[in-house]
Amino acid sequence: MKLKIKKLKFSTGIPVCIIHEDTAKEIGIYIGSRVCLKTGSGKRLISIVNTATELLRPGQIAVSEAILKKLRLRYGQQVHVELTERPRSINFIKEKLKGRPLKKEEIFEIVNNIANNSLTEAEVAFFISAVYEEGMSLDETKYLIQAMVKSGKKLRLKGKIADKHSIGGVAGNRTSPIVVAICAATGLIMPKTSSRAITSAAGTADTIETIAKVDFSVKEIKQIIKKTNACLVWGGALGLAHVDDKIIRIERIVDVDSPAQLLASISSKKISVGSKYILIDIPYGKSAKVTKRKAEKLRIKFLHLAKKFDLKLDVVLTDGSEPIGRGIGPALEIKGIIDVLQRNNPPKDLENKSVMLAGKLLELSGKARKGQGIKLAQKILDSGKAFKKFEQIIKAQKGDMTKIKKPRFCHNIIAKKRTKIRHLDNKLINRLARYAGSPEDKTAGLYLHTKKGQVAKKGEPIMTIYSNSKERLEHAVKFYQKTKKQMIN
Amino acid sequence: MKLKIKKLKFSTGIPVCIIHEDTAKEIGIYIGSRVCLKTGSGKRLISIVNTATELLRPGQIAVSEAILKKLRLRYGQQVHVELTERPRSINFIKEKLKGRPLKKEEIFEIVNNIANNSLTEAEVAFFISAVYEEGMSLDETKYLIQAMVKSGKKLRLKGKIADKHSIGGVAGNRTSPIVVAICAATGLIMPKTSSRAITSAAGTADTIETIAKVDFSVKEIKQIIKKTNACLVWGGALGLAHVDDKIIRIERIVDVDSPAQLLASISSKKISVGSKYILIDIPYGKSAKVTKRKAEKLRIKFLHLAKKFDLKLDVVLTDGSEPIGRGIGPALEIKGIIDVLQRNNPPKDLENKSVMLAGKLLELSGKARKGQGIKLAQKILDSGKAFKKFEQIIKAQKGDMTKIKKPRFCHNIIAKKRTKIRHLDNKLINRLARYAGSPEDKTAGLYLHTKKGQVAKKGEPIMTIYSNSKERLEHAVKFYQKTKKQMIN
Repeated sequence: MKLKIKKLKFSTGIPVCIIHEDTAKEIGIYIGSRVCLKTGSGKRLISIVNTATELLRPGQIAVSEAILKKLRLRYGQQVHVELTERPRSINFIKEKLKGRPLKKEEIFEIVNNIANNSLTEAEVAFFISAVYEEGMSLDETKYLIQAMVKSGKKLRLKGKIADKHSIGGVAGNRTSPIVVAICAATGLIMPKTSSRAITSAAGTADTIETIAKVDFSVKEIKQIIKKTNACLVWGGALGLAHVDDKIIRIERIVDVDSPAQLLASISSKKISVGSKYILIDIPYGKSAKVTKRKAEKLRIKFLHLAKKFDLKLDVVLTDGSEPIGRGIGPALEIKGIIDVLQRNNPPKDLENKSVMLAGKLLELSGKARKGQGIKLAQKILDSGKAFKKFEQIIKAQKGDMTKIKKPRFCHNIIAKKRTKIRHLDNKLINRLARYAGSPEDKTAGLYLHTKKGQVAKKGEPIMTIYSNSKERLEHAVKFYQKTKKQMIN
Repeated sequence: MKLKIKKLKFSTGIPVCIIHEDTAKEIGIYIGSRVCLKTGSGKRLISIVNTATELLRPGQIAVSEAILKKLRLRYGQQVHVELTERPRSINFIKEKLKGRPLKKEEIFEIVNNIANNSLTEAEVAFFISAVYEEGMSLDETKYLIQAMVKSGKKLRLKGKIADKHSIGGVAGNRTSPIVVAICAATGLIMPKTSSRAITSAAGTADTIETIAKVDFSVKEIKQIIKKTNACLVWGGALGLAHVDDKIIRIERIVDVDSPAQLLASISSKKISVGSKYILIDIPYGKSAKVTKRKAEKLRIKFLHLAKKFDLKLDVVLTDGSEPIGRGIGPALEIKGIIDVLQRNNPPKDLENKSVMLAGKLLELSGKARKGQGIKLAQKILDSGKAFKKFEQIIKAQKGDMTKIKKPRFCHNIIAKKRTKIRHLDNKLINRLARYAGSPEDKTAGLYLHTKKGQVAKKGEPIMTIYSNSKERLEHAVKFYQKTKKQMIN
């Protein structure tokens, strides 16, 4: 049935449309049903239905802004609305929940159905649970990666394409922009696409967004890379293995990372941008995502998969038991990055880790001889070439390093007595920053005045919490009070 | 922050509110965030936020009809809106996913959070997966039942309270109304509350709703039972262990029934209505929900739990490999029930099973001597007393047996050659009825002209499919064509 699009601007987490109750009855649709929207030019999208009696008339449809953009629809235009059958992939998910391994074509169908929104959030949650609980064989993981790559776009670039990725979980730890700047300065092509924060306070994309645009088309990114050898952009809107983004959004609810999912997520992105030389950073330890044992297992799986996809890949296990850098939250983290690049009282742990990773990648890609990578990386950093490269990239991304926004509110956590910090808990620190509004509020987060092994004297600040919302700040301070024993001890 | 309720009528599957983008920013809320809505009278409800720029002004809020009803709000009234913290129960769900058994207080918190909508559909899906994958001990199941009973309302009744329940999965199989009518005629109190269809084409509530109201308040139900000894109502709106309804709604997506969830679901409802004598029907076999082995395991668990809650409970295992009765779908099933009660060419399999179950329950509750139950039940049915009792109940529920709605469209499946039916597949038959629009479209479903062992000669109808929507009917016929080999063979 053809329905006319009524102008009603609204945004939802998932594609939602509203139709009149009478129209719904006529088509045989009920609240929560799935419909397929088709445009004259052949674009299609699956959406969930809500009904209304007053917002619009029979024969009209209102669609969320995401749908409008995706289908390139205009108000007043007509769209064809029809019932969709229950996707077969739900049955495959059910079988996986019951413990049966998935076949190649089943994995491809699940991924396609996630790609075109045929599956609801709850259905994707069942898929994530099934993969988490039942695991995936190396072959299943390979198919998942292939399906993700195939369902998305690809970035076709020339040159020696390299990438670095951390599995995350460590507060701060914003090494990517520094590694990218150092490596790109040597001529390596570094098409760095990042996700937004999953469970941490900020992802690389959130962080770069405080000083530059990160949301570009594939064509624009190619131009940026042509100019600068690199980019530091958000991968979400590029459509590169975009199913991964949809899965991550739901996975982050319970924050369970199945190894298969993690492998697929990282590998599919790297393959989609054509990376050949890949360095994976797996931080392990107390309050990190994984134990040393799990890190080692994951390392072996990465190396096996790399062979199947013919990649030059190396994995480093790093100490992830403590936050890295002092700022946690997008604007606070970009400050630390710029300090390292400008050689301006840089946070030493952030600098050392970044140089080490850049060095390894330079060796892996043949830009440095075995054992000489770190030295070369440090030289590029000290010479100012890395900062210059970073400036170029930010400029190409329409950015301005001097325009970091300041938060409206802050709260100092003051030591009531002499306090020696024995451990800073990554998970609680990240949650504190999120309570403050990070990463959606770019200015929100916290600054660690005192790190592991250091002492805050009575009356000195241990940390400062920042936020643009007074309510959020209060929430964060309350959270700190409730959990401080585990958070800073 | 206080926001004024703007008149915008819309219905969604879950509680959703819409606020202006600017207001959202001010409070620190993002799309998909959870907020707590509080009224002046102290009512509270958690809702998911969408944002808009045109539907309303800053300072206004639009809420879905379910919220409006639940909080008893009026347009123009003010409601207090505030951020809610991420519920702790998500962490418990995560732990369960990882395999850790849940403690009593954790189960209570999860159940409470489902009850007050603090958990999203995806989060509940993770909980269902965790329970399905990791299982629950008998103690965990006991706590789940206790929590469900506690979070809901209770029906306090006098007399010998009895109930009958089938775990479902068999197409047709609408024995409950007949068992209730027979037993209530002997003076047993039968407060039968049913859910709507989970995976079948119709639940008892859907079926009764074709001729009577099923949606009553607790007070009204007490009056109906006082008049007639029984009721046949929908349990969903009563608030009896209502968390179960929310779980079932999401569970039905993937149609995985974990034993623990099944036990909790059934037991919590029965305990909430005060039943003391309970008969559980577990149909097993090809295309039924469970195998004979699983049915036997489930039986033992039911008997163990019954002891913990001091119930007189018995379990019968029945043949569930074929549909029971000839009509599948609410209106088609009520027709079969009335035929049995009126002794008007009744479907024999439906009659025999109903009489057997009623007989068992009469023995369990002491209304018949051991071995005499079936005889007594048949006598009550044949005497017309059961029909009279059913008439009373329907009348008390403001019903009218003559007013069964007719569908607008039908399609006969004609035998192209002499066809002997060897097996009718429950799952596919149920799905066919659902494709036709059942149970939301009460008239939709199918009528089996030919059952197992019977022959349709060339040109004779095998079945007729009904629907109120032409599109749905076409979908159903297509589905039949695609699956007929497995469906009727």
